Amino acid sequence: MSRLESFIRRLEAQRACLDRAAALVAGLAGPVLELGLGNGRTYDHLRALLPGRDIFVFERAVSAHPDCVPPADRLVLGDLRETLPAARPRFAGRAALAHLDIATGDAAASRALAASLAPLIAPLLRDGAIIVSEPPLVVAGWEAVVLPDGVAPGRYHLYRARC
Amino acid sequence: MSRLESFIRRLEAQRACLDRAAALVAGLAGPVLELGLGNGRTYDHLRALLPGRDIFVFERAVSAHPDCVPPADRLVLGDLRETLPAARPRFAGRAALAHLDIATGDAAASRALAASLAPLIAPLLRDGAIIVSEPPLVVAGWEAVVLPDGVAPGRYHLYRARC
Repeated sequence: MSRLESFIRRLEAQRACLDRAAALVAGLAGPVLELGLGNGRTYDHLRALLPGRDIFVFERAVSAHPDCVPPADRLVLGDLRETLPAARPRFAGRAALAHLDIATGDAAASRALAASLAPLIAPLLRDGAIIVSEPPLVVAGWEAVVLPDGVAPGRYHLYRARC
Repeated sequence: MSRLESFIRRLEAQRACLDRAAALVAGLAGPVLELGLGNGRTYDHLRALLPGRDIFVFERAVSAHPDCVPPADRLVLGDLRETLPAARPRFAGRAALAHLDIATGDAAASRALAASLAPLIAPLLRDGAIIVSEPPLVVAGWEAVVLPDGVAPGRYHLYRARC
């Protein structure tokens, strides 16, 4: 499979999982956490899917399209390993959805970073919250959610938090 | 439409047009010109579609995945406005397919650059060659090729050279 083909399938899986996650949290109050802004494409998709929902973006340094930069009071700047623990008083047990996209070309490094972030994300979520992630996350008590049709296992990941 | 959705549709259109172009030149001898390498995704797709075909890549400075860097004797380094005229003795009237992807966030600048490149590309192509491009190109005598199903007009462009 060419890199173009693989890239398209990853983006299609990402979109399908975000769409599914938004549907799953429709009846679940609480903010959305976008962990990593990048160019702002998935942030833009999430705010289109969930109009009126508070979306907080955690990012080291903003380099997104100008129209995909969140309002200053919804932006948490800094390294996730520091900002997630610092955000605990603000969000503990409240977030309804979290999206983590830190996959890079280096799969081993991405998984190691994800493993260090998972225990920092979990305390911010309410019971039943949905987590969308690439790479995979392993947290005791989280349940895997069945992937949307057409998403090959391993391309993107969906979990439901139980706490 | 969100930026994620729009980006996916552009990539799907790009893939569909490259697939169609490869099918259209199956019986047409001559090298392929990849004008712009970028991360190497479309180069990787073209070489998967057309195994055994000579693919020459024109790029200002290589920053692709290491496994998507063409062999040194198929790589033409430099600014297209200089390398295309310089390549005329080597390719004049021979290329069967050219792919130009120079679309950026600045549509007006991309179109202006494309307009300056089109008359430099045309002399390299054989009669019946297929051009895949974003942004659009206007060259006297080139025919628009019907887009593949599912590709919205304007997302990507297909032409057949007549000379």
